[in-house]
Amino acid sequence: MGVVIDGCPPRLSLTEADIQPDLDRRRPGQSAIVTPRKEADRVEILSGTFEGKTLGTPISMWVKNEDARPEAYNEMASKFRPSHADYTYQAKFGIRNWQGGGRSSARETIGRVAAGAVARKILREQFQVEVVGYVKQVQRIAAQVDPETVKQKQVEANIVRCPDETAAPKMIRLIEKMRRAGDSVGGVIECVARGVPAGWGEPVFDRLEADLGKGMLSLPASKAFEIGSGFAGTLLTGLQHNDAFRNQGGKVRTLTNRSGGIQGGISNGETICFRVAFKPVATVMHEQQTVDVNLQNTTLKGRGRHDPCVLPRAVPMVEAMAALVLVDHALRQRAQCG
Amino acid sequence: MGVVIDGCPPRLSLTEADIQPDLDRRRPGQSAIVTPRKEADRVEILSGTFEGKTLGTPISMWVKNEDARPEAYNEMASKFRPSHADYTYQAKFGIRNWQGGGRSSARETIGRVAAGAVARKILREQFQVEVVGYVKQVQRIAAQVDPETVKQKQVEANIVRCPDETAAPKMIRLIEKMRRAGDSVGGVIECVARGVPAGWGEPVFDRLEADLGKGMLSLPASKAFEIGSGFAGTLLTGLQHNDAFRNQGGKVRTLTNRSGGIQGGISNGETICFRVAFKPVATVMHEQQTVDVNLQNTTLKGRGRHDPCVLPRAVPMVEAMAALVLVDHALRQRAQCG
Amino acid sequence: MGVVIDGCPPRLSLTEADIQPDLDRRRPGQSAIVTPRKEADRVEILSGTFEGKTLGTPISMWVKNEDARPEAYNEMASKFRPSHADYTYQAKFGIRNWQGGGRSSARETIGRVAAGAVARKILREQFQVEVVGYVKQVQRIAAQVDPETVKQKQVEANIVRCPDETAAPKMIRLIEKMRRAGDSVGGVIECVARGVPAGWGEPVFDRLEADLGKGMLSLPASKAFEIGSGFAGTLLTGLQHNDAFRNQGGKVRTLTNRSGGIQGGISNGETICFRVAFKPVATVMHEQQTVDVNLQNTTLKGRGRHDPCVLPRAVPMVEAMAALVLVDHALRQRAQCG
Amino acid sequence: MGVVIDGCPPRLSLTEADIQPDLDRRRPGQSAIVTPRKEADRVEILSGTFEGKTLGTPISMWVKNEDARPEAYNEMASKFRPSHADYTYQAKFGIRNWQGGGRSSARETIGRVAAGAVARKILREQFQVEVVGYVKQVQRIAAQVDPETVKQKQVEANIVRCPDETAAPKMIRLIEKMRRAGDSVGGVIECVARGVPAGWGEPVFDRLEADLGKGMLSLPASKAFEIGSGFAGTLLTGLQHNDAFRNQGGKVRTLTNRSGGIQGGISNGETICFRVAFKPVATVMHEQQTVDVNLQNTTLKGRGRHDPCVLPRAVPMVEAMAALVLVDHALRQRAQCG
Repeated sequence: MGVVIDGCPPRLSLTEADIQPDLDRRRPGQSAIVTPRKEADRVEILSGTFEGKTLGTPISMWVKNEDARPEAYNEMASKFRPSHADYTYQAKFGIRNWQGGGRSSARETIGRVAAGAVARKILREQFQVEVVGYVKQVQRIAAQVDPETVKQKQVEANIVRCPDETAAPKMIRLIEKMRRAGDSVGGVIECVARGVPAGWGEPVFDRLEADLGKGMLSLPASKAFEIGSGFAGTLLTGLQHNDAFRNQGGKVRTLTNRSGGIQGGISNGETICFRVAFKPVATVMHEQQTVDVNLQNTTLKGRGRHDPCVLPRAVPMVEAMAALVLVDHALRQRAQCG
Repeated sequence: MGVVIDGCPPRLSLTEADIQPDLDRRRPGQSAIVTPRKEADRVEILSGTFEGKTLGTPISMWVKNEDARPEAYNEMASKFRPSHADYTYQAKFGIRNWQGGGRSSARETIGRVAAGAVARKILREQFQVEVVGYVKQVQRIAAQVDPETVKQKQVEANIVRCPDETAAPKMIRLIEKMRRAGDSVGGVIECVARGVPAGWGEPVFDRLEADLGKGMLSLPASKAFEIGSGFAGTLLTGLQHNDAFRNQGGKVRTLTNRSGGIQGGISNGETICFRVAFKPVATVMHEQQTVDVNLQNTTLKGRGRHDPCVLPRAVPMVEAMAALVLVDHALRQRAQCG
Repeated sequence: MGVVIDGCPPRLSLTEADIQPDLDRRRPGQSAIVTPRKEADRVEILSGTFEGKTLGTPISMWVKNEDARPEAYNEMASKFRPSHADYTYQAKFGIRNWQGGGRSSARETIGRVAAGAVARKILREQFQVEVVGYVKQVQRIAAQVDPETVKQKQVEANIVRCPDETAAPKMIRLIEKMRRAGDSVGGVIECVARGVPAGWGEPVFDRLEADLGKGMLSLPASKAFEIGSGFAGTLLTGLQHNDAFRNQGGKVRTLTNRSGGIQGGISNGETICFRVAFKPVATVMHEQQTVDVNLQNTTLKGRGRHDPCVLPRAVPMVEAMAALVLVDHALRQRAQCG
Repeated sequence: MGVVIDGCPPRLSLTEADIQPDLDRRRPGQSAIVTPRKEADRVEILSGTFEGKTLGTPISMWVKNEDARPEAYNEMASKFRPSHADYTYQAKFGIRNWQGGGRSSARETIGRVAAGAVARKILREQFQVEVVGYVKQVQRIAAQVDPETVKQKQVEANIVRCPDETAAPKMIRLIEKMRRAGDSVGGVIECVARGVPAGWGEPVFDRLEADLGKGMLSLPASKAFEIGSGFAGTLLTGLQHNDAFRNQGGKVRTLTNRSGGIQGGISNGETICFRVAFKPVATVMHEQQTVDVNLQNTTLKGRGRHDPCVLPRAVPMVEAMAALVLVDHALRQRAQCG
């Protein structure tokens, strides 16, 4: 897996040590509730830095594959896995790499997480912006979390990456139960960006929430995105929903934050807060109906070492995409408005 | 309001008569439950066609403003409307056109709807794809609609654009009640695209659902997007959620459609189905807390002629953005895969 | 003719009076050596400004057509003009607007010049950069001009826009002779940008000279581009060609400027200097061989009111494209490097 | 050195053997008149193919560095080489990799040539288009070559890549003389594309010649570009310059090709023919004036193993960029016009 980052500001101090921690939060085998595949996912910076600092030119990085077992995929050469991308790739390209899923493998998110680690560093050091994601819900188990105060340390305090100490163990038990049953489960990740100044975003097509939504919906297994009050906001009236403005300490603030930190496509200085829904992982250890490449009806049973729940490993992916979108808008704002 | 469409295929027959109907579905004053502003919103094609056919060069169109009442906006010169874009524009650009909202006015969606009408025509005539949107929910009133069979004629059968004959009158009554109360209400629009062949979309960043999501989240007042099973899909297990493949009449079909017609970012030939949440309209006829441009706390009461519910007029906007995204991917597919 | 400018910085003072002078330098009928078509080319700003200042949102402008004589173009409906775009448009799109050339008409440069006037204003006011173009050569008559000192006032001192007082009258006489002969003539425009700081440009594909070259080669009738020493530089050896660096007053300067102000794709702080070749105008008042739309051999004689030499009117086009490219790189530099 | 190709059509047969030959034509040490650095430049395809065919997903390739001698560059850490990119990179980014030139090294053209080999294969197999470049001039020694008939085999018949048997040995002798003198020399490469159908290109900003020009001017050491008649065309009148159309065998052809195969930005079916000027290589083995990073005046003498003339190795670079631009327009044409 490789990734190329273009447009990174120069003279940012950057080594593999800045990137590896986020990759470690994404990698297989990190805990008892994720896939046991053994992959160290060691990142190496190939270009774009010099003596520990970014050059301003493209940064390329890579992570070598270590635990590929192509033989585990032989049946996939001829059968389409339900709710995977096998069939659509075949339909689109007329060819597909059935060994390990090829481009459709969720291993592609390594590149996103590596790039996101750089973006988060830029946000932190140059814009004082902090991005924190966490598991908000696993199936019906919902967590109570305060978006204004939650810290990454709390998120990392347990293997399911849920900062609610009551909900987390329940989530873990559910995921373990699912794994034993050869089944899988989905849920919701919430992510906040704190410290974003008012003024990032664009008025029409590239609204900040539109770009955040696109980033999240481009993640494997994501099915939904909401910002601020989201779907629940449709149950309120305008009077109930509006965020009143107040002068607080010389700054324009809102008394509530149903807008989720964005109004008219542009950040308003409040905490940006959004949620992403991830479907239950499609690979399950049960016989399922499908068709083969000759369009014959058949069945397929999941094999291999898959995640019973993608959410713990998806937290750094969500943070990465959020950081990449935010940096992009930060630089656009600097370009146009100085 | 003007719009420029680039990349339209040549030799498509196109006149204002192809575009005006969608603009009429968007325009103010069309019914008792939308803003009573009188704007005919007549579209004029300025370039890009010749003798009733597209030239392949950019198509520019415009719609003249007719019922502007700048004096209605005087108070806005000095006060920020809650949950509007006044403050964020001021923060971003250091200047804003407070007359009628300028760029942040929802009148900008005229351009989207006009371009979308062209996109829908291309989809219909060159790809046999049909896009139909409708109101699925107003506040707590939800409609029952079959995405596989619903027709635009049913949608247009009532002024709220909900094809459920039972729910529609309830929705209308709620909206009328809200207007009398000087308040507003939000809801959900569902949209389907039928006939999309397997193979539209891209594997990673430009997944079809990601581009659809971005399009929808770029619409004024939208707060959430979900495709297929969406948030509700997180309540199922993998076994329950997966869409089994079957050969039906020589075609690969799925027995269920929790994927919403897209797998791995690429269409699978099933009906594409997604939902968009719109918040209650921010302009309400009540005194609300806010600050003025000198950061002094003050209050502001909505005036003017606003919609108590944006949904009936947002249906053609949702269809337009869906059509624009789909045509873009249709042409990308043709470019790369012939 | 309309034009939309995206990404313009906010709060720049801007009215039609900033744009009209450059359009007047481009318009037909301005002097005895250009086409006598009567077109005032009055520009109108439709959006993007408020109380005389830019809003940061897109600026749209237009210029109405006044002197169209579609009947002058009837023969073109069936015959392809040699060395025009009639045939290639027909081949590409399968349709073309033969009235006045449609999109291929050089009237499209109105949009470039209008946008360029805004770009030149940004360069002047925010970056202290001055762009000056002038006619360097008409056919074999070459001018002597010092790129370091030439001023626009000198350029505008005569109708051929050549700041060499000796060469200018000869050029004018040649152009008048060509017009009487119903023939046409080409030449070279040189353009300088002074005050560009070191650091604008990109290392690989978007080198500053590459973007300048693209801008110039996108102008109608242009056939060649060279920066600094250009083709003549190939006659020198490396020792002769290199620009030695010297510290001059605490700044890094070069003793010569064969690089044309750009090294490795990035400006070096010296005057940017390039040349563009324009072919002789294709419309001549003589019978020429061609084919008709049914592929039958035939002849066609130019009619209508065309320029015997495009160069005097092309000067503001060259300046406009240079300014647009430079502003783009200025903002990119600000985005990435702060 | 790595390269990523996006948008390549699927199911194209592709292995390293398709790419290596062009890299061999670019690599150092290939003959007596280029730099003697020993680099095999073996390409490896890392992703994007499966069982010898392209997948439609991004193709990444790389070539490992083998003969780096960082110590050869130590003096460059503190001094700016004249007419190199050292100073401009420092000015732009505030940092630079002075070992081997970093991003500004001409080794970056490996990526272009590798991608170009894929593009040439697509052009050949899917569009029957042939791209051939050759050395047209070294300093004052000009070759006679017929653009309509010249074959790559003739170009490869000698080490200077000039298909004129009389001029080639003179060019070789001049280059050898320059190397002995520690000096360098430049010249002109001509490139043709035969078989391009009428209809590739765009009307305004992305004219085919504009994109070709940008591609060429983005190559290291290039200073000028001309298409068709180019600068020399300015010496003709319109009557002399126009390309008359004739029906030849049922096809629209031109009797001459001063347009260089492109009219109005769009290919007309004739041979596309353009020229690119390359300056003499900046590294010479003589003491030259320069400044150091502390802005002190000093001198610097070239060391290391450099090319006395870049042209023989630049031929595949020119072909590569031409092929990449042409494929891009081929796919754009297919997208829009079917």
